[in-house]
Amino acid sequence: MTMADSSSDLKNLIESWLPSYLPSGQTPLILHEAMHYALMSGGKRIRPILVILTNQLLGGTQANAMATACAVEMIHTYSLIHDDLPAMDDDELRRGKPSLHIKFSEAIAILAGDALQSRAFEIISRDDHLSDSTQVSLIRAISAAIGPRGMVAGQVLDMDGENRSIDGTALAEMHNRKTGDLISASVMAGACIAGATDAEQQHLKDFGYSLGLAFQIRDDLLDVLGDTETLGKPQGSDQRQNKNTFTSIYGVKGARERLDILRSDALTSLEPMGARAEPLIELTHFVVNRIH
Amino acid sequence: MTMADSSSDLKNLIESWLPSYLPSGQTPLILHEAMHYALMSGGKRIRPILVILTNQLLGGTQANAMATACAVEMIHTYSLIHDDLPAMDDDELRRGKPSLHIKFSEAIAILAGDALQSRAFEIISRDDHLSDSTQVSLIRAISAAIGPRGMVAGQVLDMDGENRSIDGTALAEMHNRKTGDLISASVMAGACIAGATDAEQQHLKDFGYSLGLAFQIRDDLLDVLGDTETLGKPQGSDQRQNKNTFTSIYGVKGARERLDILRSDALTSLEPMGARAEPLIELTHFVVNRIH
Repeated sequence: MTMADSSSDLKNLIESWLPSYLPSGQTPLILHEAMHYALMSGGKRIRPILVILTNQLLGGTQANAMATACAVEMIHTYSLIHDDLPAMDDDELRRGKPSLHIKFSEAIAILAGDALQSRAFEIISRDDHLSDSTQVSLIRAISAAIGPRGMVAGQVLDMDGENRSIDGTALAEMHNRKTGDLISASVMAGACIAGATDAEQQHLKDFGYSLGLAFQIRDDLLDVLGDTETLGKPQGSDQRQNKNTFTSIYGVKGARERLDILRSDALTSLEPMGARAEPLIELTHFVVNRIH
Repeated sequence: MTMADSSSDLKNLIESWLPSYLPSGQTPLILHEAMHYALMSGGKRIRPILVILTNQLLGGTQANAMATACAVEMIHTYSLIHDDLPAMDDDELRRGKPSLHIKFSEAIAILAGDALQSRAFEIISRDDHLSDSTQVSLIRAISAAIGPRGMVAGQVLDMDGENRSIDGTALAEMHNRKTGDLISASVMAGACIAGATDAEQQHLKDFGYSLGLAFQIRDDLLDVLGDTETLGKPQGSDQRQNKNTFTSIYGVKGARERLDILRSDALTSLEPMGARAEPLIELTHFVVNRIH
């Protein structure tokens, strides 16, 4: 089985598990439908794939990592729902489909996002594959990564930077918070479940940040170079919103060079894992080369 | 020291600890200010007081319960911030001051609420007064209480009931989700930290739901009988929003009768604790008799 097949199999497996982690009863129907719609509207599932692949490369089983993988995807989904709101990025399309607040309502979108965040922590705290100590470590790492010093800080910095110029360092810092922290936390979560050594954790953390930033630069390049149909959102939308991007700061050529450096950094961080890291190496190439 | 003094002392103690649980650095200034403004804008602090009093009556120390108490208040604050948003209840005043989205912006209010939720779980998962097992139990109970089957479900049911009539049972069910679940979880959290027996936990859970519903009925009565200055919000605002309330369904006299029944239920649930429960008994009378 090639990596492409295996990664695609893993994506399908995650998508078959995801809805089972929504509460099965006692949830108002419209809320359940909204959470399900947002969660199952596609996406690359990079974060849960990272949880599972990292855990596997360190000898862990999929059964031990699946709940945490799905929890991380719920958190990512909540952040997209809130980012799309009129008061935030005001995006009416997400992955080529109506955003949640368009499909349902703004109030339901706010609440579905809130509920997905709570549910993610509930899922990890209920996962009886894991020891109490692992559960606490996971919740500590993930809550820190998405809170006021992590993902939410990134979103504030992003809005703060709209309509004014920032430099490449500030842009990277913003993306390290907005997407890097959760991507790196996903890698660390897989490592934590497998009982990684401190040295392994540090290498994987570095890998996560390089991969996260590479992911964002590729996104910025696709916004300039891609077409609306492939992207699922209007091509060029960042430029129209006066957003700072790696292409607006470094140009297309400069952004491509930085992308290559980050790919190289990511692969260097994986070297100490040897051949076991092959699935993460292939995922890195996928992130850098993807066309949507 | 009378209970009024002690409860007021406890409120002051909680308010002196609350800001110390906000992250001390690495948070964008405006986000920190928004979280601080919302968290420190007053309030009765009923939920953290319940965590601490319940833990104390079962022999626990304040040091063991303070972080969880503050985490619960952060969650309550996040829910108020999101409830006040224009897409939700559209309230421009909260406790007599501008709501967070008026004082800052809608985007900052959404994000500050999101960050307070994450931070609450982070605080519990970092509290080294507690065993891993207690931390996991607390996170499990609290995340379930505020998620898609708990507090958020209540908010969805509340919006769903606006502008159409519901009966008293449906109204009580809505409030049991919207406020009862977190109030009961606060009581249970105190019990969990103290290592309560199963029987004690069941009594305290029942107490929490009776107290939570009594709290809401008192709120509804105050909306009809109170004045704007004492309430911190326009008197009669529920009626103008066509909200279902205990007074609109049962009338003032009927609502008062139900309030008395709930006070009696709450006190009955506390009887097995004996004299140790005195602080919770006094808190119950305070909730039922309060004038704002």
